Amino acid sequence: MRLPALSRLASILLVFAAYSAAQSQTQLNLMPMPSQVTQGQGQFLIDVKLAVAIQGLSDDRLAAARLRFLSTLGRETGIPFSIEPPSTGNFTLQAQAPSKPLPTLGEDESYRLTVTSTSVQLTAPNPLGILHGLQTFLQLVHITPQGFAAPAMTIVDQPRFRWRGLMIDSGRHFQPVPVIERNLDGMEAVKLNVLHLHLSENQGFRVESKVYPLLQEKGSNGQFYTQKQIHHIIDYASLRGIRVVPEFDMPCHTTAWFVGYPDFASGPGPYKIEPKWGVFSPAMDPTRETTFEFLDKFIGEMTALFPDTYFHIGGDECNGKEWNANPKIQAYMKANHIKDNAALQSYFTGRVEKLVAAHGKIMEGWDEVLQPDTPRDVVIQSWRGPQGLAQAARQGNQVLLSNGYYIDLNQPASEHYLVDPLGGEGATLTAEEKARVLGGEATMWSEFVTPENIDSRIWPRAAAIAERFWSPQSVVDVPSMYARMAAVSEKLNSYGLTHNSFTLAMLQRMTGSDDPAPLEVLASVVQPPQGYQREELHEYTSASALNHLVDAVPPESETGRKFNELAALIASGKASPAQWQQARTWLTLYRDNDAKLQPTLAASEITAELAPLSRSVSEVAAIGLQALDDLKAKHPVPTADRDKNLQTLKAAEKAKAILLDKLVPGVELLVKATAK
Amino acid sequence: MRLPALSRLASILLVFAAYSAAQSQTQLNLMPMPSQVTQGQGQFLIDVKLAVAIQGLSDDRLAAARLRFLSTLGRETGIPFSIEPPSTGNFTLQAQAPSKPLPTLGEDESYRLTVTSTSVQLTAPNPLGILHGLQTFLQLVHITPQGFAAPAMTIVDQPRFRWRGLMIDSGRHFQPVPVIERNLDGMEAVKLNVLHLHLSENQGFRVESKVYPLLQEKGSNGQFYTQKQIHHIIDYASLRGIRVVPEFDMPCHTTAWFVGYPDFASGPGPYKIEPKWGVFSPAMDPTRETTFEFLDKFIGEMTALFPDTYFHIGGDECNGKEWNANPKIQAYMKANHIKDNAALQSYFTGRVEKLVAAHGKIMEGWDEVLQPDTPRDVVIQSWRGPQGLAQAARQGNQVLLSNGYYIDLNQPASEHYLVDPLGGEGATLTAEEKARVLGGEATMWSEFVTPENIDSRIWPRAAAIAERFWSPQSVVDVPSMYARMAAVSEKLNSYGLTHNSFTLAMLQRMTGSDDPAPLEVLASVVQPPQGYQREELHEYTSASALNHLVDAVPPESETGRKFNELAALIASGKASPAQWQQARTWLTLYRDNDAKLQPTLAASEITAELAPLSRSVSEVAAIGLQALDDLKAKHPVPTADRDKNLQTLKAAEKAKAILLDKLVPGVELLVKATAK
Repeated sequence: MRLPALSRLASILLVFAAYSAAQSQTQLNLMPMPSQVTQGQGQFLIDVKLAVAIQGLSDDRLAAARLRFLSTLGRETGIPFSIEPPSTGNFTLQAQAPSKPLPTLGEDESYRLTVTSTSVQLTAPNPLGILHGLQTFLQLVHITPQGFAAPAMTIVDQPRFRWRGLMIDSGRHFQPVPVIERNLDGMEAVKLNVLHLHLSENQGFRVESKVYPLLQEKGSNGQFYTQKQIHHIIDYASLRGIRVVPEFDMPCHTTAWFVGYPDFASGPGPYKIEPKWGVFSPAMDPTRETTFEFLDKFIGEMTALFPDTYFHIGGDECNGKEWNANPKIQAYMKANHIKDNAALQSYFTGRVEKLVAAHGKIMEGWDEVLQPDTPRDVVIQSWRGPQGLAQAARQGNQVLLSNGYYIDLNQPASEHYLVDPLGGEGATLTAEEKARVLGGEATMWSEFVTPENIDSRIWPRAAAIAERFWSPQSVVDVPSMYARMAAVSEKLNSYGLTHNSFTLAMLQRMTGSDDPAPLEVLASVVQPPQGYQREELHEYTSASALNHLVDAVPPESETGRKFNELAALIASGKASPAQWQQARTWLTLYRDNDAKLQPTLAASEITAELAPLSRSVSEVAAIGLQALDDLKAKHPVPTADRDKNLQTLKAAEKAKAILLDKLVPGVELLVKATAK
Repeated sequence: MRLPALSRLASILLVFAAYSAAQSQTQLNLMPMPSQVTQGQGQFLIDVKLAVAIQGLSDDRLAAARLRFLSTLGRETGIPFSIEPPSTGNFTLQAQAPSKPLPTLGEDESYRLTVTSTSVQLTAPNPLGILHGLQTFLQLVHITPQGFAAPAMTIVDQPRFRWRGLMIDSGRHFQPVPVIERNLDGMEAVKLNVLHLHLSENQGFRVESKVYPLLQEKGSNGQFYTQKQIHHIIDYASLRGIRVVPEFDMPCHTTAWFVGYPDFASGPGPYKIEPKWGVFSPAMDPTRETTFEFLDKFIGEMTALFPDTYFHIGGDECNGKEWNANPKIQAYMKANHIKDNAALQSYFTGRVEKLVAAHGKIMEGWDEVLQPDTPRDVVIQSWRGPQGLAQAARQGNQVLLSNGYYIDLNQPASEHYLVDPLGGEGATLTAEEKARVLGGEATMWSEFVTPENIDSRIWPRAAAIAERFWSPQSVVDVPSMYARMAAVSEKLNSYGLTHNSFTLAMLQRMTGSDDPAPLEVLASVVQPPQGYQREELHEYTSASALNHLVDAVPPESETGRKFNELAALIASGKASPAQWQQARTWLTLYRDNDAKLQPTLAASEITAELAPLSRSVSEVAAIGLQALDDLKAKHPVPTADRDKNLQTLKAAEKAKAILLDKLVPGVELLVKATAK
């Protein structure tokens, strides 16, 4: 969290006398980190006379990239650059050969960027590399005493993996075109190159079909992409060097299909759009030829609409209940020696794979589609665990890792960052098997995100994952990652992403106040529980309003993270006096905040639930302050007192209003340290 | 200014113990204030079951308004309303008759809104009134202990004036389509109904002409609206009940036309796009028939492109220099007994008026086009002074007031608010003459605005002007206006307007820091000088980067305004102890801020200029604190000491870094009060 209130409070009024205006460039705020950087002498000053010229080969993508670059650089600097192409320039773009009309898996994405005090030269084998190099340059720009500038250096760079994806689930909560657009802009900024759209779910079918119009008419509650919008998204992505891979999940996760077309379901119907979250029973009927006739025409339409070579058919989480309950299906299985539901799904997937192939595409699916006889070109997206990846690669299939990159689960960036497609089980693969690991995808499942807060779940953590997919395997320094991710996060504001601005807007709405300061203080130190706990704590449907504090805070509390680092330093005796003072300042703020916040909570139906949480945060902070006093006084605290505090902290660990107090781990460290 | 840092600081850590979470609804936060409001019992609760039904007549505008309403209400509440039309609803929209396909001057815009604890009924003679009523309802919504709700009431409402406009100058700084879109959304929110686009200037010709393509190809630096975009803007506006009136300024303000078409200029050429601001000499040649042939075809194309009945031909600020210098023009004038340049322009305007009329449109022009023989249906837009309005109305012409509504000049909202089209000179008109006053327009000239900060110059002050145009003449309470304008300003955030978010983003850029807290403190109490002073203080061109503090602060410092109110209370002995404490808190903050800010300023080329301003603000605050001490101690200050302080304050009044310190007037009051 960017924490405007707290960090500003602290820096202005409290302890941080050493305010630093211009961000220090002692480290390069690049993410993903390029594979090779050679620092030069001086800096390239950026002023209104900047002339960005395309040399030699040009095409639509390059011309559009140049304009987009000038527009972004204009937002980054406020300088009104001329957009008219100059004949010569002090900033040249030179691609050796054209890239393919649509970005294609395995194209060369490398580039070379040379910044001197007088010129910038960006060269690449094709325009895709130019796009990447322009984004690198934008990250280099910062304000200096001489004006905006980029430090002189030479960067030689290329990606580690060919497939660097972000999956957005538009099925559960529909994500309108502007959400997709701004996230494509964010993807370009961090060199992600595949947008995987999860387009059908029990809760909604999200693309206009002209062949089977009841899919969207009855299956979407009016929320779907028209084919015209899909064309637009593909064009928008292509200009940014990003492929769009559609996913139509089958044979399960298909309730919404059956509202309009119940005849190829395995149950008796009728069906209605599923309002709840979870795994549901509706499944396509693999035993009827009409199902495959339907899918043939459908896949024909959709493979024509989506030009990418890959076509994702999902295939996850079949519970088999409709199959079990259908006597005709049971009879078919018996007659055809299909031994169980997994085999039935395997039969289904095999048929679908042939349809996909017949339409000129390569099938992709989740772990479950992998069977011993799965064609070798089918791409497996591994979500259940790292074993899935290794198994697929060993079997000869190409594979993507998503396990470990589930950004809907509110894990800290560091956890995603340290998952490597070729780490763990992947590290045991042979070189040939490793070559089958195409890359990975961050997955943004959308049970708990709306257009309002989805950016905050994707960004900035997707930037850390993007670095994993792009940068050398050796780039693993977590503190460096957090520092660079914070810088990139700020840059992403000017791409229209809302991950830094959404909290204040939501708190204003919750309170009806334009200045919800005490609630901001509380918000700065709490975070949603990780994993699937949220669904256990409260029952949600698609009609639930995601307008509570748990929806309004980032997945990872930045203040919490920093406080816990500070507490560890103090507990281990390594903290400076300024760090002691900082911990005391924060704890005082949180202890005293409850008295200001509490009287206001009942005025809003949405904030009323926060009373116990606010009280608990205050109590935890008070215990922390007492521990600081005890540590300072260097007198050991009696065990009974300490145990009482630890019990209180244990209780405070529990989620309240579906939120965790991130002060607790650090305060526990402090209390435990009082034993010595 | 919304002042996040300052107000939050104050409310959390300093003095405002009585923080109020949910905004009090003791007043109705409506702007413009409806003509008749009758409060009822209870409130209408808004939940996910809200069913907004169109009863009886429907059309595209109404259907789109319903969807837009649900979308905005969804953003205001976070509730996922269903967009599927229900057969019956607890919120009904009923229009008696269709409105015209495009909004037309003089259409009935009235509506009746009845909110009870169980239902909402919105009726209107036609869909335009429904649009207005929906916006009124959105302003009523606020959070309560029971959830989001609108208080029960009956509103009967209609506009005072038929023409309630906002002019945006896309000529000087081009304003791309998204800027226009979001400002149309803002206009709808406050019931403005005319977007006047100023489309050609010395600095740029901004519409694609297919008949004369060199207009945009040579006259725009690549920045212009395509005809497709113009269609889109007109459709977008029409759906919101807003007319689009184009202005092509002639015969002067026309340098950009002549870059591609020098032949109908009065000078020898060649011409280039003018980079500077001001009044320039290039003018069309009214003595050549080819000029009118050109204009006939051009007006034919543009009147077809813009469907509104009115067509604005500008006509302002001819300095006549090219005419004076051209012997052929001089000879023509002599031969035709044209006595001076005003008469020559009058001849030109008369010819153009006939062309406009021949294309089926009614001409509109600035004051200067009014001549004794000007046809009665020509609309005069009065900018030079209230006399112009009265003169035109007396002469029998319809007229709009813009004098007093120049929102580019950084005047406080209260000044614009108290200008009435029928006040001053207008009040002396007869009833028949008054009926010729169609309304008015706020004018957003764009020398000093870019897409980044233009919203902040328009909003929220345009809301106060909109109230002047809509609400009864008797609605003139300034404190009520400021309070309601602040509430509406917050609501406008969710329309995508950036007037509340731009400051922090620009300060971050200026400092290279994500947390520019001390600069925010300085920013909160300074404002740009009013009127045309900025151009006197520094030389600007269209290549100037508008990325300095003067560009990043709102036109009116909200803290400055409030501090000066507080100081007046203290100086007159009417302040409460809490108000004394508040003044002290603020002054302490500003006094101490310089020490934090000063060491950081040199790190950025953009902030370096702020050193004297920051120091001066600190000195002024210190004088204010001393004055508070003296007043508290009740000992009269020696005249010499007081005069010395007043001299310092006099010097502090002068702009530094093109910014004024708004503490000065209040501190002057305090110092003067120490005489007693």
